[in-house]
Amino acid sequence: MAGTDRRKGASAGGTAAAPVVVLVQPQLGQNIGAAARAMLNCGLEALRLVAPRDGWPNEYAVAAASGADRVLDRAELFGDTEKAVGDLQVVYATTARERYMVKPVLTARAAAEDMRRKIAEGLRVGVLFGPERMGMVNDDLALADALIRIPLNPGFSSLNLAQSVLIVAYEWFQSADATPGREERFGQSEPAGKEALLNFFRMLEHELDECGFLRNVEKRPSMVRNIRNMFQRAGLTEQELRTLHGMIANLTDWRAGTDELGEPVRRRRLRKAKTES
Amino acid sequence: MAGTDRRKGASAGGTAAAPVVVLVQPQLGQNIGAAARAMLNCGLEALRLVAPRDGWPNEYAVAAASGADRVLDRAELFGDTEKAVGDLQVVYATTARERYMVKPVLTARAAAEDMRRKIAEGLRVGVLFGPERMGMVNDDLALADALIRIPLNPGFSSLNLAQSVLIVAYEWFQSADATPGREERFGQSEPAGKEALLNFFRMLEHELDECGFLRNVEKRPSMVRNIRNMFQRAGLTEQELRTLHGMIANLTDWRAGTDELGEPVRRRRLRKAKTES
Repeated sequence: MAGTDRRKGASAGGTAAAPVVVLVQPQLGQNIGAAARAMLNCGLEALRLVAPRDGWPNEYAVAAASGADRVLDRAELFGDTEKAVGDLQVVYATTARERYMVKPVLTARAAAEDMRRKIAEGLRVGVLFGPERMGMVNDDLALADALIRIPLNPGFSSLNLAQSVLIVAYEWFQSADATPGREERFGQSEPAGKEALLNFFRMLEHELDECGFLRNVEKRPSMVRNIRNMFQRAGLTEQELRTLHGMIANLTDWRAGTDELGEPVRRRRLRKAKTES
Repeated sequence: MAGTDRRKGASAGGTAAAPVVVLVQPQLGQNIGAAARAMLNCGLEALRLVAPRDGWPNEYAVAAASGADRVLDRAELFGDTEKAVGDLQVVYATTARERYMVKPVLTARAAAEDMRRKIAEGLRVGVLFGPERMGMVNDDLALADALIRIPLNPGFSSLNLAQSVLIVAYEWFQSADATPGREERFGQSEPAGKEALLNFFRMLEHELDECGFLRNVEKRPSMVRNIRNMFQRAGLTEQELRTLHGMIANLTDWRAGTDELGEPVRRRRLRKAKTES
């Protein structure tokens, strides 16, 4: 059941069957921490750092990780990129610019699917991210089997390091996530059955007849259909139908009677008055 | 050609046919700036701010926007969320937590497709993002037609505000982006034709025969096939074939002759020696 295990691994943040993230010469500790947070958000835990500029460990990284400490605590430190990828079998490198290298270029989405396939085959996979601003040197890009380019606004495509990590990690997580695109939520209730809905319609139409809103006999059928369509479209729950029943009952209280001065009196007030008298 | 216009709008960062991003009570200017940057990365330019905690404009926002100034410059300020959504026709709200609301819940990906459809119908669409940490109050969520929930590691799902904006904006951009998932790149050259490849194989096999590497007659056919497969798999370009020809020619220089002591001499050195003598 390799498939089941992999999915479980991804959801639970397992590292056994997930790509390693390699940050090449990252500059700001803050970006390393934000990258670690984005990784853990998406179930990735294996982080490698190649010659971080400000040394390691780094307190700014811890602050920015916002609780993704276990990614930072287990981060592995390397002196150069070659050593950092030595035990990997498939390496991807993210790049924003066109480099005249003879290499496949994948979108982040296609790369995630590609990584899933490689990992399903039991291969050890990693993704390289270059330093802030400069991006990766060509010698490091040459270590990769494929490049990842994130499709973005060509007029403003420069992503922050942690944002790049987030997109790649996000696509990794989505590629095995089974959440349906759209779920209807009914709170604590259930969608109303048609009989209950029709009961409400009949009650409403009775009250609208009583108050004269539907007095135009010719237009009545189409008005009724329009009103029914409106409420039908709302996809009401049983609880919401009870609320609507209550609303209409209260709104029509005035029909119950008039007081001694001939003014309309609410049923409830009338009942109360009767009880008191 | 509504479809074409929309795609163009998204790629060029147009706002006419794109969702409005509404940040409800954002706290840190830095997050507003990073959100603006993420928006422009993905071709979104219309930003609305509801009661930003530290006032507006905000110098930290400008610094974090890293050049996405035109999003900040045109940001609209509102006193409350109701006013901010007043002219919109379809509103989505991002939320990390389950709220017992009777409302559809969409993934970021499905929401992007939904927004494309609504905008194609000419509707004015917006997405609400709540304040850092607390998320949105239920009264603001009630303004939304649908909720957006980003599928993430359930054990660590809290995204930074700008990261949430990035994911929603990224999915928006991807939903109309036509970049092929995988593109093969051949640098300045072209993939080698089979005839050129076979020429190389014949040259290589000739040299391997000469040096004795293929001397085992029985194994020779399978060795030749394995070697051909190896190079075939690399998907070589014409330029790369020329490089390989040159490599083999240089590596086989020694075959040309021996010097006066009987040691092998490289052809080039031999030629040079002959010229000099």
